[in-house]
Amino acid sequence: MEERVYLSMLLGLYGSLLTDKQRDIMKLYYDDDLSLSEISEITTTTRQAIYDIIKRCHKTLLNYEKNLQLLEKYNKNEDLKKSIKEDLVKAKYKIKDNEILSIIHDIENKLEQI
Amino acid sequence: MEERVYLSMLLGLYGSLLTDKQRDIMKLYYDDDLSLSEISEITTTTRQAIYDIIKRCHKTLLNYEKNLQLLEKYNKNEDLKKSIKEDLVKAKYKIKDNEILSIIHDIENKLEQI
Repeated sequence: MEERVYLSMLLGLYGSLLTDKQRDIMKLYYDDDLSLSEISEITTTTRQAIYDIIKRCHKTLLNYEKNLQLLEKYNKNEDLKKSIKEDLVKAKYKIKDNEILSIIHDIENKLEQI
Repeated sequence: MEERVYLSMLLGLYGSLLTDKQRDIMKLYYDDDLSLSEISEITTTTRQAIYDIIKRCHKTLLNYEKNLQLLEKYNKNEDLKKSIKEDLVKAKYKIKDNEILSIIHDIENKLEQI
């Protein structure tokens, strides 16, 4: 996965553990792809301070992932969910009984909420 | 949920974000149900220091949950998984076709890994 995309995903998972200012700057950099100079102008903060915040928060986010592995678990679960969804579609095309089909639909809906 | 059980679950989810010493003491207190004096003796740390560590880490764990809501999401997902498992059992008892039954078994196995 591309570094910027990876950090953007970690930011989505752990951003709530950063301060508001840290999160704003990280989003501008990783989600909106702005340059240090652009972020500096928007936030009226020196370019060096922006650089330091991004560098520190980058390390913080990697450290949260190292300890909690939420992104790794998320990706693993998404793969399993995708595979279950394919199984459910396969089953649906073989089932003729409406009562069983209705149960399969219920399962699909519940799986979407996991 | 009882406070001690709740904290024990938070410790399981966020314990990796504490230091080794903090985690040891919190586990002795919340998982093993030892008293401050017992923990003080085992860790050769004053009773007051143990009290301070537990109080601070208690607050830290609640704050992680407030921000990340991993326990809340975990409980919600467990409820959904339980409900899907019940649906799968219901479907199994109505299905006669072995090919479809095999797909249902696959789904059950994958669901266990989520």
